[in-house]
Order: sequence, then structure tokens, then C-alpha cells
Amino acid sequence: MAPERNNTEAAIQAETPTRPTGSGPLSGVRVVDFSAVVSGPLAAMWLAEQGADVVKVETMAGDVTRGSNLAPELNGMAGLFTNCNRGKRSIRIDVNHPAGREVLLDLCRGADVFVQNWRPGVVERLGVDFEAVSTVKPDIVYVSISGYGPDGPYASRRVYDPIIQGLTGHVAVQKNPEIPFLDLVRTIVCDKATALTAAGSVCAALFARDRGAGGQHLVIPMLDSALAFFFPDGFQSKALLDDDEADSRPTLARVYRLSETADGQVVYFTATVDELHSLFRALGHEEWTADPRYCDAAGVRANREEIGAMVASAIASWPTADLTARLDAEQVPFGPVLDLDQVQDDPQIRHNRLLRTRRHPAIGRLLEARHPVRFSSTPVGVPRLAPTLGEHDTQILTELGRSSDDIEALRSDGVIASPAERNADAKRASAAGDGP
Amino acid sequence: MAPERNNTEAAIQAETPTRPTGSGPLSGVRVVDFSAVVSGPLAAMWLAEQGADVVKVETMAGDVTRGSNLAPELNGMAGLFTNCNRGKRSIRIDVNHPAGREVLLDLCRGADVFVQNWRPGVVERLGVDFEAVSTVKPDIVYVSISGYGPDGPYASRRVYDPIIQGLTGHVAVQKNPEIPFLDLVRTIVCDKATALTAAGSVCAALFARDRGAGGQHLVIPMLDSALAFFFPDGFQSKALLDDDEADSRPTLARVYRLSETADGQVVYFTATVDELHSLFRALGHEEWTADPRYCDAAGVRANREEIGAMVASAIASWPTADLTARLDAEQVPFGPVLDLDQVQDDPQIRHNRLLRTRRHPAIGRLLEARHPVRFSSTPVGVPRLAPTLGEHDTQILTELGRSSDDIEALRSDGVIASPAERNADAKRASAAGDGP
Repeated sequence: MAPERNNTEAAIQAETPTRPTGSGPLSGVRVVDFSAVVSGPLAAMWLAEQGADVVKVETMAGDVTRGSNLAPELNGMAGLFTNCNRGKRSIRIDVNHPAGREVLLDLCRGADVFVQNWRPGVVERLGVDFEAVSTVKPDIVYVSISGYGPDGPYASRRVYDPIIQGLTGHVAVQKNPEIPFLDLVRTIVCDKATALTAAGSVCAALFARDRGAGGQHLVIPMLDSALAFFFPDGFQSKALLDDDEADSRPTLARVYRLSETADGQVVYFTATVDELHSLFRALGHEEWTADPRYCDAAGVRANREEIGAMVASAIASWPTADLTARLDAEQVPFGPVLDLDQVQDDPQIRHNRLLRTRRHPAIGRLLEARHPVRFSSTPVGVPRLAPTLGEHDTQILTELGRSSDDIEALRSDGVIASPAERNADAKRASAAGDGP
Repeated sequence: MAPERNNTEAAIQAETPTRPTGSGPLSGVRVVDFSAVVSGPLAAMWLAEQGADVVKVETMAGDVTRGSNLAPELNGMAGLFTNCNRGKRSIRIDVNHPAGREVLLDLCRGADVFVQNWRPGVVERLGVDFEAVSTVKPDIVYVSISGYGPDGPYASRRVYDPIIQGLTGHVAVQKNPEIPFLDLVRTIVCDKATALTAAGSVCAALFARDRGAGGQHLVIPMLDSALAFFFPDGFQSKALLDDDEADSRPTLARVYRLSETADGQVVYFTATVDELHSLFRALGHEEWTADPRYCDAAGVRANREEIGAMVASAIASWPTADLTARLDAEQVPFGPVLDLDQVQDDPQIRHNRLLRTRRHPAIGRLLEARHPVRFSSTPVGVPRLAPTLGEHDTQILTELGRSSDDIEALRSDGVIASPAERNADAKRASAAGDGP
């Protein structure tokens, strides 16, 4: 065991028990998660956290993010993996084998939802496309996430999040006016927006199914999801086609800034003249509130750059601690810039109990963020830990009515792995991971 | 009318008719959207786009984003507003007046969902908190979005998106290794993640309600939503508490990069050794695939920095057009870096018909992104245009059973505005907007 390297334990008070608890609004819903990487797995985790029973179906190689070296990992379990896959059970199947396909279709027979995010053509080749699955389960809600959609010029291309960022404008607006080079958003925002889009839309489709709409196919390209997510503010300067000045007006992307204090940084944002005047007072410049140049919206608009420079200069004269006390007292919208250790120690984040530690048998202590929605009638509980690869093979096959002999036959045919192979594979996965 | 300033029309082929069409999975659901700015309105717009009948209840001043000068706007309709509020009708009420509160509660009596995002204490003061609304409509799904949650040290603070970014770690990881200054994510990612969280959770609660869970209160703080959204990849370096090397391993935030070609930029991302070798071939360096230092995952991991430098140097020698053709041929995951005009012209974005123009009577032609989910059984249609302030006062009051005389009385008491006042207010809103 490693020594403590940060203040996590202090922030979290106590380790959360690992036994699953609670039910959530999706209690009774059964999901087959035949997806990998982030967009599909995170959508299915969201459903699991809200109470669905989710079976993650993995290929013999396992989800590539298990052993990715793009995230720290231990024993074939990366943090990225555990935080996109908790609440699920894992079955590992050779889906290219006819008997493996039969297991997958058997799972579908008892499922309400099927999630897949392979490139177009793969589920057709494997015989588990919407048509095939809805033949065995006519009221299935079947979700196809892909990079670009089922057709079109890029449909067959491989996709990762930053590529969608470049295409949708996320990179075009990620430019600090003071350091004018484009950058990527350094979180997988397109993957995650797609995941939330998919999870919510599954719930809408389940609602409609109970009211008579039947099963259906939800086609959710990352490109479409990411552009819709980006658009409301990202395209501010382009939305009003008959506004001659649109391109020259300030947008959120252009006015966003971090402010330098005497000893650190702070974020403030004022959307009204009242809030701006509160800021003037907090900075010790009550007299600015009476200046006719800054006393109303038109003046603020006309003198925006001058005001920005005055405020920046005043902020730079205050130590962070003094300044934040004054901003708080004047009710200016503001906050600190926290590093990841400080996030864990923030008083409101602690108050809301947003982080928890749990002990995973394969990888030791994990840090997790809890589900963000508090449902008063159908509270969500603590979900089960992310599964090891194929951890629930036998359990799930037994639930499907397979006998011990059937299961042994699947093992000897290589359709599922033996426990010994599983252990060896986990070690290999831990040593593998690749790609810069 | 302004002349065309970009290639939008070409990209979109034809203006979309403005009459609402389609139904969507939430057909029959009625929503009272008593929220403002982005987090609540965007959640309610999502429900509207998926088929719900959404009434936006505005105060006499109207939603502050209507006239915000943080976005271009015409006649009191900012692009940010229209792209968070289409599909809705608007009623404008003096909610501080007892008769105004009665109208709001009347709307609740016929509603399935209530969305509010005022600071803690406001809905209690106005008499439309969860308890009050569930008294008149016991099975209501009532959503409270707030910055920090109902209690805790920051609960009463004003909040905007960048402040939550600073608190949750979004800023901490937004650092280009080559230009090591922190920055904000320059989209309102925390607002929008909260909106998607809320919209999806409403659907889950509606599903549970039909299965017997009754109405309930969904408490969804932006802080909680944004941290949960950020966590899976954002906390990669902190998630595995027993990994001694966690802090020093590469994370997605650290490896994300834009690459300089001979005449522009490109994004690539290789997650496997196979993809990396495809990149070597695309760059004209087949021989690197045979180099024992780069031939497997362990080698790639050990020589990451050297590989990055080699690849960057090779990319810089190719013109963008030639390079992208080669990357495409070798199936390397890649994409261009597009500005907002180029986004509109991208072949796949055009193929997927992701953008549309419509003509709004108040503000002329609008550019919109269509809803990203394709539902096969319950297709979503084109939603109604974003409403002007109080556009549907009379229509909605009539639906609530108020007579012409009742409505006139509300007008003369100032509980709703007269049409003449509405026009004057729209002009004022257009001249207002404030705050840097």
C-alpha cells in the first residue's frame, strides 16, 4: 500500500461501503451494454447509477480503456475505466463465435435496452444489429452511438473525442485572447456530452415505450451530439444571420477570463450592472459606481475594455484571501481556481459529499464522484464496483438458464475464458496499454 | 436585411419551415419552465425538442439572457436565448403578485414537470417550492437546479458557469503543456452538463412515476453535476489511491494536442499500437513500424516523448490537404481544425443536416443546430421558434379557463403586461444588456 499522497482521506471522512444500495428511478430496467471506451460505457453507467441492472458485454480482449496507459491503471483497471463502468456486471464472450452470439442474443431477450458504439457495419457483421435484436426482443430500446452516424463521407472513419472537438468548433473558440493560440478542451467533452445525451434519451424512449410507442432504434452520432451541445453559446456570433454586427460583438468565449490577484488567481463573472457595481465596491472603488460612464448598461457596453483593465489592475493589488472575503461579502459571483487536491478539500464539495473512497479487491482504494442527482422518491444508492473482465461470466450464464455442463462447454470451446486465463489476461493487460 | 456574411445558406440548402412538426418520445408531457439563463432553460428546451409541451414562465423583466450583450441580439432576442428556448411558449407574470402566483399554481395543476433554477429560498418566498406545488399537483416531477445545492457554506452565493469550472478542476487541467498557463474552458460546459443531467433525470423520474413511484423532488446542483461530468477523465491522475505512480503518468489532459502541418493544423489521436503504426505509414515512415523501440506497447510507453517529437516533425513537413488524404487512407483517427464558418460547410455536417436556418418574425433569420437524437418510433420534429417575452399570455390564460374579463383584470392590475407595454419592453431590452 502506498502512503497517502494527498488529503483525500481527510476530505472524505470515511470509506464508503462497497455493497450496492438503493434503487433509483430505473429500478427494474435491464440493460445490455455492448460498448467500449467512453461514450457508450458512460451512458450505461449513468443508467446503472439511476437503478438499472446493467450487464457489460466485453470481447475477449476486453474494453480497451481497462489497460489504457492514457490513464493510470493497476491490474488491468484504469481510473478512467472504473469511473465509466461502476454499477455493472461483466461477461466476456467471443462474439465472433456463433455460440457467443447466441449468449448475447439470450441476454437481449431479457433486456429493455441495448447500447452499442461500434463503427457502422460491425453489429451487422456480428448479427446483433437493431433488426436482429428486435427480432428476439421486439420492444428493445436499441442505442447506436457512432462517431459520424451510419452514413456520409466520414462514416467509416475511426473517431476519438479530440477529433470531434476540431470539427464542431470546440477548438475554434478555445483561445485565450491574451495568449491567442487555439487549444483543445482538455477533457473528453464530446464523448461525455454524447453519453449524457444517450442516457437521457434512453429514459425518454423507455417512458414512451410504457405509453405504447414500442421499442425503437436511437441513432446518436458523437458529431451530432457534440455540435448540439456546443451550439447554444459556441455559435453565439453566428446564430443571428441578420445581425450586421454579430461577428464583432463579445461572446462568452471571448470574455471568459481568469484574473490574477497579488498572490494567485480568481474567477469572477458579472452579468448585470448591479453585479459589476458590487465588484467595484469589493475592490474598494465605490466611486466607480457613481461614474456616469459606468452607471448603466449602455455605458458599461461602450467602456467594456477600459472597465476590464481597471478591474484587472485593482484585482492584482489584493491578496486572494482578502479579496475573496470582500467578493463574498458584496455577493459578487466569484470562485477560486482549485487544483485537483484542493477540489477534494473544498468546503462545499465536502458538504455535498460529492467524493467517496471505496476499496476494490483488484486495485485497492478508489476515488469516485457520486451520482449528481438527488431523487426524493427513488433515491439512488451506492452502485457496485466496476467489474474485472468477465467477473460475472458464470453468474450471468446461470441466470440465462445455462447448466454447469453448458458453461463448461462454452469454456472448452473458448467462447468464454477459464478463471486461470482471466487472471493471466488481467496481468497482461496491466503490462500492456499502448499508443501515445 | 444584411448581405450574406458567410456560406451558411449554401451549407443548409433551404430554410426550414417554422411550423412545429413531429412529436417525440415525450409527447403528452407538460412542463412548466420557471427558470432563467442556461441550466434550467436548456434542460426544458431538451424536453420540448423531445416532444413535451413547455410553458416558459418569465418574470416581468424577462429572462436576463434575452437582452444579454454577452451574445449578439436583435429586438430583445439573443442567439444564446433562442438556442436555449425554442419549442416553448412564453407567459410573463408578476410572480410577486398573489394573482400571479395563482396563475403559476394553475399552470402546475396541469403539469407533469416543474423546472426552477433560482437561488435557494426564492421559490419558498414566492410560494412555489416543491411542497407548495406538490400540494396542488401531488405527482409533479419538480426539479431544483441551483449553483451549490440547498445548503452548505456557498449555498447563498450567486453562480455562473466559469465559477463552477474553477471549483471542479476544469481550469486545473486546461493547460497546454507547450503554453503552460491555466485557462477556462471557453464554453459554458458546466451549465450545459447540468442541463443534460436534469433533462435525462426528468425522463427517468417520469418513467418511474408511470410505474408507481409518484411525484418527487429532483435536487440538481451545478457543482454536483459539473464535478460528476468532469470526474471520469478529469480525475484520472487521482482516482487510484494505491497507485504510487499515478501523479506522474500521462493523462488525456496532458497528451491532447493540436499538430502543426506545413500550412495549418490537424488533430490526430492514436489509442493503440496499430493506430500509431498506421500514422507512421501515413507520414511516409513505414520503417518506424519495424523499429524494436516502437513495435509494442511497452516500447511505445517507454519512448513516448521521442515518438511525439518524431511525429510532430514529420507532420510539419506535410501540407494539410496531402496529409489528411494519407491519414484517411491509412485509417488513422484524425480530423481538421475548423473555424465556425468551416463547420457549417463540413461535408459530414452537411450530410447529417445538423444545421438549419429559420426565419423568426422578430429577429429575421436564425441558425440552429437540430436535436441530435434520431428516434425511429417517436421521431422528433422541428420545434416552434423561441417565443418573444409574454407572446402566449392570452393563449395560455385562456387554456387555464380564464375569461376575457379575467385576463383584462390581470392586465389592469399589472399581473401581466399589455401588448403595447410588451413592445416597448422589447425595445428597451434590445437597448439594455450589461456587465462585462
